[in-house]
Amino acid sequence: MSRPVFDDIQAKLRSLTRGTRALPPQSRAEKSAALRARIIDAAKEEFAAKGYDGASVRAIAAAAGIEQGHLGYHFKTKRALWEATVDVVFADFPSSVAGMPLPRTYEDARAVMRLALHSYADYCTVCPEHARMVFNEATSGGERLEWLVERHIRSRVATLEPVFNAARDRGAVPATSFEAFLLSFLAAIAFTYGLRAFPAAVFGPAKTPVEEVPPVPIEELIALFLR
Amino acid sequence: MSRPVFDDIQAKLRSLTRGTRALPPQSRAEKSAALRARIIDAAKEEFAAKGYDGASVRAIAAAAGIEQGHLGYHFKTKRALWEATVDVVFADFPSSVAGMPLPRTYEDARAVMRLALHSYADYCTVCPEHARMVFNEATSGGERLEWLVERHIRSRVATLEPVFNAARDRGAVPATSFEAFLLSFLAAIAFTYGLRAFPAAVFGPAKTPVEEVPPVPIEELIALFLR
Repeated sequence: MSRPVFDDIQAKLRSLTRGTRALPPQSRAEKSAALRARIIDAAKEEFAAKGYDGASVRAIAAAAGIEQGHLGYHFKTKRALWEATVDVVFADFPSSVAGMPLPRTYEDARAVMRLALHSYADYCTVCPEHARMVFNEATSGGERLEWLVERHIRSRVATLEPVFNAARDRGAVPATSFEAFLLSFLAAIAFTYGLRAFPAAVFGPAKTPVEEVPPVPIEELIALFLR
Repeated sequence: MSRPVFDDIQAKLRSLTRGTRALPPQSRAEKSAALRARIIDAAKEEFAAKGYDGASVRAIAAAAGIEQGHLGYHFKTKRALWEATVDVVFADFPSSVAGMPLPRTYEDARAVMRLALHSYADYCTVCPEHARMVFNEATSGGERLEWLVERHIRSRVATLEPVFNAARDRGAVPATSFEAFLLSFLAAIAFTYGLRAFPAAVFGPAKTPVEEVPPVPIEELIALFLR
């Protein structure tokens, strides 16, 4: 190869890489974290759509663009991958009412319960895999559900109970038990915003893609849960 | 064999079969229907627990006590077996409000909506596979969900809408949209009574079997849906 041609190629390579030159090289730990995130993204989709038993680790590896053996290096078992995925999904769970002072007036109670309803609806809209993974385990029952409830749900429920009780004492929510309120609240919102395929199939025109059927406005659900 | 011994055996056989002698022999069609019912019983359990993708036709055949090939004689494909199972599950869906005259007073409207809530809760309690199979498809979305909605849900929803509208006009249900009411009503009741493993895991003492955690009284849910 003659010198001018070589210089030309060198110049081209420099110009091609100039934009990225300033970025520091990705460390091994960063690369590993990025790959882990890519695997979990693929796992979210697969577990949410097919349930634990129906999900295929091979399909998750393929969606993440790696060999199944390489996936096994990051997550030793299907169960370990499922647990890591649940942890990532619940990391964004709203903590809107945690640590707030208990409401003292009807208006405060109504405002704080509105906030809880709104933030759970937003979360289910942005992260539908939450509802889909929880419903899948709730249909199966068993040890995975116990793990999920123990790790991610029980303490959040405990946070909401005194807020609900205070709101009920002030007449801001229906006069019912915390159990009935919580189960209905979770189910109604998770089903309406997290499992959008169902409302779309029932209320949308036939064969319309889910995204084109407008979601039920949250205010219409709030009418059931606030007084 | 001497004659007295033979007569004795004949007499014993007669006494053993006397109770069943009156029954006509089972015809081939009856035997086939009984086996079909046994297969569908096993399929209900398997599809409800594991979802369509997770369910194993081999496991269903084993639970029904037959060879997988023999199951294939009755149901050509997994999808055909799933459809037949959904049809059997929905055969018991309550038709309590279908064909009733529209309520004209607040009291009538409240009574008919109470009936709808009660009968759906009873159905979800007696046939939890309904809720589990619908939720499993609602998490996946897609063509099976469309089939299920078209075949079993859309016409029932159409029956309930005028009843809800009349009840709302008379102030017997919350002033919200039919969509919001129906989605919340289905989700709250199906989740609370059909997916009992979830309430049991959240509200029961740790490691308690589902059957030992008392269900939420239906009156506590009715407080959310009636006025």
